[in-house]
Amino acid sequence: MRKISESTVRRLSLYLRFLEQCAPQKITISSDELARLGGTTSAQVRRDLLAFGSFGRRGIGYPINDLASRIRGILGLQRQYKVVLIGAGRMGSALVHYPGFRERGFNITAVYERDPKQIGVRWSGLRIRDVGSLERDLKRDSVDIAIITTPVEAAQDVAGKLVRGGVKAILNFAPTKLAVPEDVVVRTVNMAAELESLSFSLARGGIGHRE
Amino acid sequence: MRKISESTVRRLSLYLRFLEQCAPQKITISSDELARLGGTTSAQVRRDLLAFGSFGRRGIGYPINDLASRIRGILGLQRQYKVVLIGAGRMGSALVHYPGFRERGFNITAVYERDPKQIGVRWSGLRIRDVGSLERDLKRDSVDIAIITTPVEAAQDVAGKLVRGGVKAILNFAPTKLAVPEDVVVRTVNMAAELESLSFSLARGGIGHRE
Repeated sequence: MRKISESTVRRLSLYLRFLEQCAPQKITISSDELARLGGTTSAQVRRDLLAFGSFGRRGIGYPINDLASRIRGILGLQRQYKVVLIGAGRMGSALVHYPGFRERGFNITAVYERDPKQIGVRWSGLRIRDVGSLERDLKRDSVDIAIITTPVEAAQDVAGKLVRGGVKAILNFAPTKLAVPEDVVVRTVNMAAELESLSFSLARGGIGHRE
Repeated sequence: MRKISESTVRRLSLYLRFLEQCAPQKITISSDELARLGGTTSAQVRRDLLAFGSFGRRGIGYPINDLASRIRGILGLQRQYKVVLIGAGRMGSALVHYPGFRERGFNITAVYERDPKQIGVRWSGLRIRDVGSLERDLKRDSVDIAIITTPVEAAQDVAGKLVRGGVKAILNFAPTKLAVPEDVVVRTVNMAAELESLSFSLARGGIGHRE
């Protein structure tokens, strides 16, 4: 299969969101509308969707339900994912309580922490566990995705435990590059980089770069 | 000036982070090293940097300090930014306490909230203010960037207040498309989309898409 860029995947997520927000009586959507909502061009929308097979019909547009379900398929969203989170700090708390994960089939089933004062505390019904039991737990109950919200010094050690426990996908909030084997996918979210994208636009007079 | 893609800006942020993490005695870095750290190719690194003028010397690499300061310049990081945050929930709390913002010159100077129970509470020395005074405050004290961490229903109303108050850059955590004038830059962060990028990779067998 051809390589799909990170930007394409981001736009597919965005298109899916818009399709789901369409009024129920609306049946089709044009590439122009999707482009306007997604802050891109209709040519880009057509290119993004064409990469996964032909969807739209000239002059009629894309059938909303069909397109949404195809994008869900591409993004792997026809199934549920078991997710664990390591690092019960403020960012961890924000993510555990984030409603958008469960809606999409990402179910946080366990939270781990090193700080003894936090272990045993309950968050939305989940009892925070000792990170010392992470590797053993993973070997017993397999997990699809892990979210790391530990301080930067702890992140690589946690990543090692996750890899040994068989986790193949990591969302990393610690601002560091994690060393993992080839078959493990890591996505690092850097909050400062999000603001840097805005300062970049401001420095250029607000033009030439929109989401 | 030519259009710089979102992906390029992201990679520049990443390169800057690696350059700053280099040992102080290290003077140059090769495009191979930057590529390895950034999960990309050395050809991509050279293309990214060439877009802003020639930096490296063949066989010698990029001078670390010089390159870091050039990237800071491109990203608009030679100055301080005044930032306000609206929505004192869990995500708001995580961001107000995030150390990486201040390090980069992004200073959160005020937090606003609608819930009367939260107004007046102190977060890291900041007294949470009534969102009803946001527009008036902005007209008195200008602000560079606003972060929206309100529930989705409130986000567009807050964006309107920000625009009328003269804010030109918004980082939006509410999963909705904000309508703003052409001269205002919005960047929407969607946490579920970050996980979707991982489910996409897992669905394709973990290959063909890395950060």
